Amino acid sequence: MEKLAIIKIGGNIIEDETSLNNFLKLFSNFEGKKILVHGGGKRATNIASRLGIKSKMIDGRRITDAATLEVITMVYGGLVNKNIVAKLQALYVDAIGLTGADINSIKSDKRPVKEIDFGFVGDVKEVASNSINKLIQADFTPVFCAITHDGNGQLLNTNADTIASTIAVGMSKLYKTSIYYCFELNGVLQDFNDKKSVIKKINSKTYKELLAKEIITDGMIPKLDNCFDALKNGVSKVHIGNSSMLTKENELFTTITI
Amino acid sequence: MEKLAIIKIGGNIIEDETSLNNFLKLFSNFEGKKILVHGGGKRATNIASRLGIKSKMIDGRRITDAATLEVITMVYGGLVNKNIVAKLQALYVDAIGLTGADINSIKSDKRPVKEIDFGFVGDVKEVASNSINKLIQADFTPVFCAITHDGNGQLLNTNADTIASTIAVGMSKLYKTSIYYCFELNGVLQDFNDKKSVIKKINSKTYKELLAKEIITDGMIPKLDNCFDALKNGVSKVHIGNSSMLTKENELFTTITI
Repeated sequence: MEKLAIIKIGGNIIEDETSLNNFLKLFSNFEGKKILVHGGGKRATNIASRLGIKSKMIDGRRITDAATLEVITMVYGGLVNKNIVAKLQALYVDAIGLTGADINSIKSDKRPVKEIDFGFVGDVKEVASNSINKLIQADFTPVFCAITHDGNGQLLNTNADTIASTIAVGMSKLYKTSIYYCFELNGVLQDFNDKKSVIKKINSKTYKELLAKEIITDGMIPKLDNCFDALKNGVSKVHIGNSSMLTKENELFTTITI
Repeated sequence: MEKLAIIKIGGNIIEDETSLNNFLKLFSNFEGKKILVHGGGKRATNIASRLGIKSKMIDGRRITDAATLEVITMVYGGLVNKNIVAKLQALYVDAIGLTGADINSIKSDKRPVKEIDFGFVGDVKEVASNSINKLIQADFTPVFCAITHDGNGQLLNTNADTIASTIAVGMSKLYKTSIYYCFELNGVLQDFNDKKSVIKKINSKTYKELLAKEIITDGMIPKLDNCFDALKNGVSKVHIGNSSMLTKENELFTTITI
């Protein structure tokens, strides 16, 4: 089976022009078939505040009302996505920018209202792996932003990590898929105060031990749970680290297998 | 040769939700292979003013400075394009939204500075007809907004009418192409005060007569000159009228041939 890498970048890379340019150069040099997934980060918050739209939070969680969804569609789907595509073209990557509505690639359900009404937030239901593969087979490199749709004309704000993992799971029928989560740290750390104390390998067994010893805590737990979910559903490997893990020189990052 | 229709809509359709929905229904029912091209109209001006960005005009012509280009990228490439794509998916059209940067589909040159510096405005240089055809052959329906790129990472604001005609010319190597310019009138009018006085057919010979008689004047002249340019360069037919010309019931519109 041919390999396919799904590479996800977060706000820390997108918000800084130099970081973004550096990352895109690494991405362009990364060999083999690949898909880029990006969020939008603080640019959306910034544009929203300039438009006089206030971030709504309930119990510390962000609510996507209609006005916020418009900003997200503008910033993620337009400003960030199209600038990344233009920059990649300049690096000879034949990029194509997508939301989940394009080629019906990612369908989601509007999150049901329970205790909190999150608004226009989508939980991914279906990835159109055959349609996405048509683009890859045509030698295009898909660049997904964190927006999906419900199939009835409604765009929905969707977590970029989830988009990366569900695309990787969906494409694993056709390719040997791996995920690269690029973030600000070098990987999963043994000691949060020592940025070089990267745990190089984690599997289901060692993960349980790390949880029991409370080395992995808080926000890292749902992230790693998601990784193991993806691995159980067909993804070969998940890598977590800063974007230099895309080069062969850097070996300081975390690799997760089942 | 198989037929391909390039259908262009302007601000009057995009700005009004009902008009847009009506148009998209007609578009979805329009048989055969097709490409949609849209501008952004007043929504960009509206968002720009809410962001405190003033429209810069020199000699009555709009200037695209960096801040305006950002708004255009957000509104045309994000808000308008992705909502159209989501609405088309709900109508079972497998749409894919594009700027000229995506799949390197439309390359342009930043307009050279002569008397006026128009800023980030692109004059189309090259249409990647083979790449666009890969999408069409994969049964996707391209939806282009009025943005191109220079190939060096710079997005550029580009006239939507020109995008429609250059795509039609480019694709005419592979298809029998026709253009449909949808606008607020029923077609080219004999008498501007009589909205039903549509000139049904125009060719090079009758065009000269209409110009001589001053029936066609002002803003209509560059529009029609562009149509004849497209026809001279391989396009079969150009249609001008309101969007109901896409149905077989309405025969009141202008058809231009060479």
